[in-house]
Amino acid sequence: MRYAPQSAKSTQVTEWDDGRQRPFLDELAVEEPLEICVNGRPTSVTMRTPGDDFELAAGFLLTEGVVSHRSDIARIGYGTAPDGEVTGNRVEVTLSRQEEIDLSRLERTATVNSSCGVCGRTSIDAVHARGLTRLSTGFSISANQLTDLPAALGSAQRVFGRTGGLHAAALFDRSASMIAIFEDIGRHNAVDKVIGRSLQTDRLPLSDSILVVSGRGGFEIVQKALVAGVPIVASVSAPSSLAVQLAREFNLTLVGFLRGRRFILYSGEDRIRG
Amino acid sequence: MRYAPQSAKSTQVTEWDDGRQRPFLDELAVEEPLEICVNGRPTSVTMRTPGDDFELAAGFLLTEGVVSHRSDIARIGYGTAPDGEVTGNRVEVTLSRQEEIDLSRLERTATVNSSCGVCGRTSIDAVHARGLTRLSTGFSISANQLTDLPAALGSAQRVFGRTGGLHAAALFDRSASMIAIFEDIGRHNAVDKVIGRSLQTDRLPLSDSILVVSGRGGFEIVQKALVAGVPIVASVSAPSSLAVQLAREFNLTLVGFLRGRRFILYSGEDRIRG
Repeated sequence: MRYAPQSAKSTQVTEWDDGRQRPFLDELAVEEPLEICVNGRPTSVTMRTPGDDFELAAGFLLTEGVVSHRSDIARIGYGTAPDGEVTGNRVEVTLSRQEEIDLSRLERTATVNSSCGVCGRTSIDAVHARGLTRLSTGFSISANQLTDLPAALGSAQRVFGRTGGLHAAALFDRSASMIAIFEDIGRHNAVDKVIGRSLQTDRLPLSDSILVVSGRGGFEIVQKALVAGVPIVASVSAPSSLAVQLAREFNLTLVGFLRGRRFILYSGEDRIRG
Repeated sequence: MRYAPQSAKSTQVTEWDDGRQRPFLDELAVEEPLEICVNGRPTSVTMRTPGDDFELAAGFLLTEGVVSHRSDIARIGYGTAPDGEVTGNRVEVTLSRQEEIDLSRLERTATVNSSCGVCGRTSIDAVHARGLTRLSTGFSISANQLTDLPAALGSAQRVFGRTGGLHAAALFDRSASMIAIFEDIGRHNAVDKVIGRSLQTDRLPLSDSILVVSGRGGFEIVQKALVAGVPIVASVSAPSSLAVQLAREFNLTLVGFLRGRRFILYSGEDRIRG
């Protein structure tokens, strides 16, 4: 059977607009891990949107310096599981050269290993395997408090105003006061800085706080929030499919498109009051 | 001497607005590698904006599962070179536990190794070490052709319109016709897909083409373009300091803030015609 990669999928969410709630069918960009195997060895796992996976693998191997010409790749295709089923999240590349190549320096953004290949499920299982459990409900904030946060984030961004080039992550307490804000060219770094400060000041777990990020809400952002015990994550942009799946499974409140008086609520509805 | 991290720096560039050029002093977000050493061993190199580096290292080690409490970190500080000078791009973490810990699964986004630590210079030297040389001038496009590209990119983005959650990278030929466009939740993946397609269709090097990216222009985007031989890279947002430095050193034309009839030209001025 031919594998048909899916780059977007629908999910039922709640739109809040100036205090009014309504059900909303949202389209999420799909995020799934892709494992690239070279000459039978797993070398890299990267989170990506399914589709054009051979292009992604070929381009990755070129820009990482493993191949330099089309003829360096003898074969490229999806992996197959022992039962013959195509494994859409594993691309197998066979190089033309027979000699041993050093793949140890390849970028690895995750290291999920599984005999049946990786998928969104294995990424989420890896979070369970770290001993993280569902967040308890209890802490909540009002929709009005939530919609005030981006302005607070924006006015506190020092370097962004000058450069236009930095992401920000900010932590707010239960009364919606800003506790910390950090900027970085990397979205994940800004979140790590917020969490690192919280570790250093002995504030973990951050069980009654809200993390607001300037970029999109992907799997790794939600994972970092879970590790730190943050129950509410809000972004001004879109979350990915896997971020929503992870948030729902761990009862984390995930808010997206937080702009003006409107936002989309993807999970953990109980923590937002009308 | 105390190390003072710098998160933004000024550079002289050219602003183009509706055909008119003027010199412009721009503030760039600084991008530099940070090496995190744990118990004396280099474990991770990440591109980041200098400042709050101990928070970044602590947060990274927490979210990666290496530490779980403040007391797990016995000491954290900047490294020092053999001459006693503080190495601002290396953070050394000493864990309280004495037992061996498995650090092999830590994310590594670059693997520049140098006895005097890493810095922007070593990142650029690593690009030289791959055998890449300065791009030749010759190919050029007009400012009007350039300012038409984002609209072409936007109208060709299939999934973004539905999800709002995807980055795009597109390749244009010398007559500004779109050759390829790919979308992905990851900016780097979208670029890898474009380059991978070019590899597979035997179009490398892409010496008379333009790469347009929807996000920011960081070091890795420029590096990927250089590997593929792309002479002009344009983004709708800001480049980083290190991206500009790399582009200038390799004579790549780097355009930022490409919106409407305006853009900022950071390097490779000869390829843009009035």
